[in-house]
Amino acid sequence: MKLTIDPQRAIDDLRALSKFGQLDTGVNRLSLSPEDVAARRWLLERMREAGLDAAIDEIGTVRGRTPGCEKYVAVGSHTDTVPKGGWLDGSMGVIFGLEVARGWMESGQKSKIGIEVLSFSDEEGHFSGFAGSKTFVGELAPKATRSLRNPEGKQLGSLVDELGWSNTAAFSFDKTRHCCYLEAHIEQGPVLEEAGIRLGVVTGIAGMERLKILFHGRPEHAGTIPMRMRSDAAAALFSFATEFRKMCERLGGTDTVWNLGGAEFDPGAFNVVCGLAELFVEFRDAEQAVINDIRGQVAALATSAANSFNVSVEIQAQSSTKPALMDEELMHLLEVAAGGNAEQCMRMPSGAGHDAMLLAPHIPTGMLFVPSINGRSHDVSEDTAIDDMKAGLVVFADAVGSYIASAT
Amino acid sequence: MKLTIDPQRAIDDLRALSKFGQLDTGVNRLSLSPEDVAARRWLLERMREAGLDAAIDEIGTVRGRTPGCEKYVAVGSHTDTVPKGGWLDGSMGVIFGLEVARGWMESGQKSKIGIEVLSFSDEEGHFSGFAGSKTFVGELAPKATRSLRNPEGKQLGSLVDELGWSNTAAFSFDKTRHCCYLEAHIEQGPVLEEAGIRLGVVTGIAGMERLKILFHGRPEHAGTIPMRMRSDAAAALFSFATEFRKMCERLGGTDTVWNLGGAEFDPGAFNVVCGLAELFVEFRDAEQAVINDIRGQVAALATSAANSFNVSVEIQAQSSTKPALMDEELMHLLEVAAGGNAEQCMRMPSGAGHDAMLLAPHIPTGMLFVPSINGRSHDVSEDTAIDDMKAGLVVFADAVGSYIASAT
Repeated sequence: MKLTIDPQRAIDDLRALSKFGQLDTGVNRLSLSPEDVAARRWLLERMREAGLDAAIDEIGTVRGRTPGCEKYVAVGSHTDTVPKGGWLDGSMGVIFGLEVARGWMESGQKSKIGIEVLSFSDEEGHFSGFAGSKTFVGELAPKATRSLRNPEGKQLGSLVDELGWSNTAAFSFDKTRHCCYLEAHIEQGPVLEEAGIRLGVVTGIAGMERLKILFHGRPEHAGTIPMRMRSDAAAALFSFATEFRKMCERLGGTDTVWNLGGAEFDPGAFNVVCGLAELFVEFRDAEQAVINDIRGQVAALATSAANSFNVSVEIQAQSSTKPALMDEELMHLLEVAAGGNAEQCMRMPSGAGHDAMLLAPHIPTGMLFVPSINGRSHDVSEDTAIDDMKAGLVVFADAVGSYIASAT
Repeated sequence: MKLTIDPQRAIDDLRALSKFGQLDTGVNRLSLSPEDVAARRWLLERMREAGLDAAIDEIGTVRGRTPGCEKYVAVGSHTDTVPKGGWLDGSMGVIFGLEVARGWMESGQKSKIGIEVLSFSDEEGHFSGFAGSKTFVGELAPKATRSLRNPEGKQLGSLVDELGWSNTAAFSFDKTRHCCYLEAHIEQGPVLEEAGIRLGVVTGIAGMERLKILFHGRPEHAGTIPMRMRSDAAAALFSFATEFRKMCERLGGTDTVWNLGGAEFDPGAFNVVCGLAELFVEFRDAEQAVINDIRGQVAALATSAANSFNVSVEIQAQSSTKPALMDEELMHLLEVAAGGNAEQCMRMPSGAGHDAMLLAPHIPTGMLFVPSINGRSHDVSEDTAIDDMKAGLVVFADAVGSYIASAT
């Protein structure tokens, strides 16, 4: 089935959407802020204008369905942003979904498999992170989601109540009716740009481990205590950091990433031996085995560093997410669609998290990336060449169309 | 000349002095605070009671001289404390000086060389650090000292004016009248206690370098930027820290100490590659050559670490003090005095700074250490066994007596 999309119309809609919470060249649109609420209402109107059955549910997720269908290809992303974020992250995937649904409506063919456009609530975590997609797949009960609070202390549920959206029960995933999920997104990294390739077919979304490693030493006068008598927590941390990096270089693959992004020291003075040193550790890979390999070495390395400097060590797990593998058939469909449009594409993992990673354990899921200029994202400087987005939309729509054609 | 001291009287005075600003088992007596002012007035009274010519000068230093002398052995330390400090640091040296002067007065022999007891203003740096002894030796002009401000914004000079001490010109060093300077102090470290030896004859006060090493990288999404494309400031810092330690272990001697006591990371998040990492570096040795050796390697190590992680580096000198060597003859006198009292002693450097280091470049200077229980200092837990203090005082007084005897 060929969907009769209009790429320029989608770009125009993206620009219109970027006015809600506009900040310089970017957007500040925190989940369920007045700007975000206005954007959701605008999206609901666009869906209804296109003839979709559309509503906003009791947690703020917006859904639009082509009418009269038995099954759906789900497409979408989210329209909320990080503070001082970009105009494309999330929004592009939602508008691509909307355009694909419009393409379905305007194609004139009435397939039994339609399009369900989803704009998930609170992907960026102003309340919790992936709250909308977690609720959709049943990882969070709607009641639990509604009781989440934002940093200002407001409950998600009470905000939605004020908006009059509470009569619509939370949209949820239905295995008998949702065939697959496809999400388009900006890459948020520099890989496509560096490779000079316009489209990325995502192989999997990296899983991630976050740990805090705490070394407990003894704070003392750094002039009067001989080196051999110290319990130096900072020295242990520095030693661990170096060994951790070497271990990741040894065990990680090409796409493994790790980050020791910060540390805290107490008392943190020139002339006092450090009593408590705390390191922030994160590592990601699209393969669980790699994550397990690295995680498996952490305790031994930390203990060895602690012993070398006569301190004790404590490992605090912060969070852990499993890798989400994309569906091989959908990857192939995206590649074929790219080829059909004479567009180059490359397979690549996603180091960042997406709503797709919540859907992937439940139904076949695929993602298409377009390049981020200078790899920038989560910043007002975030941007993508218009031609790259249009090329992405055409390929995305063709892949959806092929899926429907092959499944009906 | 034998000084007829009374060790118990000195201990009683020390206990009386500790009531000014008493805090649990310690003392909180910041320079020129009401508690410190009361302690200085109390000391002035004790000096006058002992028959000394005593006064407080325009910067707050207290001086008491045995009357009718041509020359002086200067003895003393300071009575101000760090916040929540101990009862002995500084105070013990001042009271030992007072007792030595009382011993001189009570000995009945009227030598031409007398005792000058000094309690220097602001050693601990509530205004600046070593302000009293720096002014005494001419490193700071009295006017400059009086314009120093404490963290509350009050000028030292204006506080002294309110106290009515401004009519006495700042006491100053006179090469023709000051023969030598001797200071007794607690060790502030664990070396004597560990060695089971009661007295330490200080060979020199360590010089010190303080540097900040700043690595400038590029903050980016730690999930989406491949490792090979990062400019990771934290990784460079960790690598430098490890190499710096190895270099110090290689170039330093038994008494060299170094400390990487803290670091700061911006933005310092799990999921953002570090853009700016800042390390606090300190190293000390009683030999300038060792300090120079270590300092000489820093730039090359920092540049190498920066290059390895594609970041730039900046080295900011924070402060630098030269080592102060103690006088060989005075060290010998202290050792002979110890032997004469059947006390063991050991030569050792001081890693901490003392007023003596300001005097040492100008006149022969010596220091005697007594043990610190558990090496604790600059804390309310700071303490020394009474018997150790008494033994120290007896040896200290004998050394002063021998000096006077040999010089007249």
